[in-house]
Amino acid sequence: MSISNDAAVVSFYGGLGEIGANMCAIEVDGKAVLVDVGLTFPDAEHHGIDLILPDWKDLIERGPEIVGVVITHGHEDHMGALPFFLRDFPGIKVYSAKLTLGLLEAKLVEHPDARVELIEVEPGEKVAIDDFELEFIQVTHSIPDGMAVAVHTPHGTILHTGDFRLDQTPIDGRVTDLPHLAQLGDQGISLLLCDSTNADVPGHVPSERTVGNTLRTVFESARGRVVMTTFASHVHRVQQAIDAATAMGRKVCFVGRSMVRNMPIARELGYLRYDDADIIDIADCDRYSPARILIICTGSQGEPYAALSLMAAGQHKHVKLTEGDTVVMASSQIPGNEAAISRALNGLMRQGAEVVHRREHGVHVSGHAAAEELKFFHNIVRPAAVVPVHGEFRHLIAHAQLAVATGTPADQVFVCTDGDRVVLRDGRVERGDGFNSGRVFVDGLGVGDVGNAVLRDRERLSSEGVCVAVLRLDSRFRLDGEPEIMQQGLIYEAENAHLLDQAAKVLGDDVRSLGSSNEDVVRRKVYESLSRFWREQLGRKPVVVPVLMEV
Amino acid sequence: MSISNDAAVVSFYGGLGEIGANMCAIEVDGKAVLVDVGLTFPDAEHHGIDLILPDWKDLIERGPEIVGVVITHGHEDHMGALPFFLRDFPGIKVYSAKLTLGLLEAKLVEHPDARVELIEVEPGEKVAIDDFELEFIQVTHSIPDGMAVAVHTPHGTILHTGDFRLDQTPIDGRVTDLPHLAQLGDQGISLLLCDSTNADVPGHVPSERTVGNTLRTVFESARGRVVMTTFASHVHRVQQAIDAATAMGRKVCFVGRSMVRNMPIARELGYLRYDDADIIDIADCDRYSPARILIICTGSQGEPYAALSLMAAGQHKHVKLTEGDTVVMASSQIPGNEAAISRALNGLMRQGAEVVHRREHGVHVSGHAAAEELKFFHNIVRPAAVVPVHGEFRHLIAHAQLAVATGTPADQVFVCTDGDRVVLRDGRVERGDGFNSGRVFVDGLGVGDVGNAVLRDRERLSSEGVCVAVLRLDSRFRLDGEPEIMQQGLIYEAENAHLLDQAAKVLGDDVRSLGSSNEDVVRRKVYESLSRFWREQLGRKPVVVPVLMEV
Repeated sequence: MSISNDAAVVSFYGGLGEIGANMCAIEVDGKAVLVDVGLTFPDAEHHGIDLILPDWKDLIERGPEIVGVVITHGHEDHMGALPFFLRDFPGIKVYSAKLTLGLLEAKLVEHPDARVELIEVEPGEKVAIDDFELEFIQVTHSIPDGMAVAVHTPHGTILHTGDFRLDQTPIDGRVTDLPHLAQLGDQGISLLLCDSTNADVPGHVPSERTVGNTLRTVFESARGRVVMTTFASHVHRVQQAIDAATAMGRKVCFVGRSMVRNMPIARELGYLRYDDADIIDIADCDRYSPARILIICTGSQGEPYAALSLMAAGQHKHVKLTEGDTVVMASSQIPGNEAAISRALNGLMRQGAEVVHRREHGVHVSGHAAAEELKFFHNIVRPAAVVPVHGEFRHLIAHAQLAVATGTPADQVFVCTDGDRVVLRDGRVERGDGFNSGRVFVDGLGVGDVGNAVLRDRERLSSEGVCVAVLRLDSRFRLDGEPEIMQQGLIYEAENAHLLDQAAKVLGDDVRSLGSSNEDVVRRKVYESLSRFWREQLGRKPVVVPVLMEV
Repeated sequence: MSISNDAAVVSFYGGLGEIGANMCAIEVDGKAVLVDVGLTFPDAEHHGIDLILPDWKDLIERGPEIVGVVITHGHEDHMGALPFFLRDFPGIKVYSAKLTLGLLEAKLVEHPDARVELIEVEPGEKVAIDDFELEFIQVTHSIPDGMAVAVHTPHGTILHTGDFRLDQTPIDGRVTDLPHLAQLGDQGISLLLCDSTNADVPGHVPSERTVGNTLRTVFESARGRVVMTTFASHVHRVQQAIDAATAMGRKVCFVGRSMVRNMPIARELGYLRYDDADIIDIADCDRYSPARILIICTGSQGEPYAALSLMAAGQHKHVKLTEGDTVVMASSQIPGNEAAISRALNGLMRQGAEVVHRREHGVHVSGHAAAEELKFFHNIVRPAAVVPVHGEFRHLIAHAQLAVATGTPADQVFVCTDGDRVVLRDGRVERGDGFNSGRVFVDGLGVGDVGNAVLRDRERLSSEGVCVAVLRLDSRFRLDGEPEIMQQGLIYEAENAHLLDQAAKVLGDDVRSLGSSNEDVVRRKVYESLSRFWREQLGRKPVVVPVLMEV
């Protein structure tokens, strides 16, 4: 089924009304270009879930031909779901910049069955695919090689910004290409899909260079080892740390799987510079005096088994922190991770380390344009219509207000969420029919087999535990002997075994009172009897599992 | 056993190295005065736990006579554990200010068996108890009637600040009594136990009055209803909201259990002023135009069933938000609640409400003195020794640095955590022997019966679910028939029933291969076989519960 005759249709699969899992499709006449196929990470409520993917069932069911996927940059929330997407759409063409493809290839090593055609493109380049022409525009972000993409269609030009910021003095000199964007604006942007992550943050974001200045100051005053944590994709921050450290005679050591994996890739592709002589192995750290060491490690979000958390717990194999050591948290706190990060901070201080972490210390700046910068952007691009993307509802609302403030007519600014579509026809945008969207959970090896019903079970198991009742029944479902009760996560059995005996007795009496019966009646009685027992005894509501055995 | 001959000994039961559950004891010659008996609230990792108490087993085991408990103010983290404490120490004397006792009495209604003697004291008052003299000092905090307490002992004076801030223009004119503190300083403070909550926040905290100015501005520009959420104990913030609202003709409506309970108490005791004519019942709201309504409600932390969250989900019985309504979040984000608060914000915006929440909008100020203010405090009190209290490790460390910076000798500044003791003898403080401390969990009706072992079970149940295997065995433990497999929270059964059949078959083959055996061997085989099966099939590790039935 084609939804796109005589129009360009944009469908939002992820990243609108949520942070992460960014993915959208632009379709014309049954052919689709996708922008980003990202994933997101589970919250505390996603018991046991490893990863969360956008739900692209709509694409499978409707079956437009996917003629190309653009990955705007190498962050997980923009490309992380691609290996899973390739299971449903093998062999598709993926367009991206050099570093992004390098990181993607390293990722695909873990998915040996994935079939994909990777096509490297550069900012300024144009690629014609069927009725589409893709035009790539250089943008600055917290990872090198970010690109926006203008998708020229027969119905108008749709500009997707990817993630971007407007740092006017970026480390690699690679500014967001405002002249190019101005030119596109002159030609006319029919629809702008624009990053909203910081739309409700007032003012401007300081240049990444300011972080370099801070790092130099901190490193200089540090007496012992310096440990710096940041995202393993933040090549420029790592570059600034390396430069500051080596200038004052510190050797640099990468610690943590993704840091060790990514930095050589970035270097090989020309995005990171360092002398081999300045890099040492973690096992050799002890051969240098503490004042000559910088460790750059993973774990900025307090992830339980990442390098920094192990150091905070005094359990890292190679790095035992002591008084005189300095830890620099050169990263943001991703919402939801605050408690874990706080735990890490306290642990690091208990080890005796001095910790530099507060935003006012200037060891982190955001990779997304803030409100005042977005106004510049809108006034340069001058879009006819706007859909804010990449953000929770509150960010999208704030961004919509900025779009209206800078001159886009209010009826051409659309706050959309996942599962919405907009239609570009005759130079005007309108809302299309929505589709079923959602989130697909990856749990261990299973993709999509754990849904909300299973999570609800896990939630209840997690807060109350489980109580298993085994009953022997005769052919008329009368109880034979006493029930056996087992539990997990409900009580501490060593001290409360008598409660299990009592529960068995109460349940036995209740079931016996039924006389002749049937399976459903007995099962209901077990639920009722044990639920009441635990509620009265402890005020708890365990998951009750009746096991009925005919003897 | 007395630990306090010829010395005053301070034992820390809670609130050092953590936020909340504040409690400490000051002992001389086998008699103890306690300062605060607070509780704390569970994190995401405390599956199903309702409340967390300090562990006072040390007091029970050693058995000093508890001659008095001082409650510094009416927040849960300072008095919330008292009803539980009274089960172990019935009939003790509790000293506190009028409002604090009022709130405590309202709380004790839910604990009809609690026996306690409540004694009202005023700032400036001195109370002699055995070898102690308690002297109460007026302090400002985010609830009225806060007090610090100087405990004069034969070995020197110990000043405990409780929670405080240094607002120089508080709403009730009741400033922290610096002249009184200066006088105590003149007489000599041997040991200061001082609030550290904001010790790592630079600068000063703005006056509570600045929030009132902001509220007036926001209320004035609001077209429709205004909903304000704050803590139900923040009487001054509520007062400012009422004053701003009624001045412009809005009626005020309290929503949420604790708001409805506390405000009349505060008023009756003289801490809150309003005209009955200005207060309306929630059921009558619809009789007024939206521009004439202010709703003051609970739920500032995004608590699932609080008033604000129900409004955000469109499920509040009486309040359906619409475009034109304004919601003001006049509260802090307690660490760990960020995700829940963010969910509430997004929900409120989806209902169409405008939400005023960011710190820079000035709708909240903290109730704890920040770093520069603490320096004032130390220089006025001039303590000979300092133990920072009330804070995570990082706050305590930051506060210790402030204490040293303002002149307390570094060897008389002690960073202690729960389970530590300090000893004041001959005008000097030293560390004493620690004791076993910890946290006691309240889960439903049970106090202390859920420990870390049960939480570990719940953690595993929550992330992987449970798999129950029922096996019929003959007298030599040989399998009779096929096993039955049940699960909760592991898979979505409707789509994966075949996996349960496969698991039963694999398990049956494995157990049959044992031949004659014994119970332990069969049990181990069930664990091993099912763990392997689910790992291989799904990469998951459910809790396995074997049910062995002799037939």
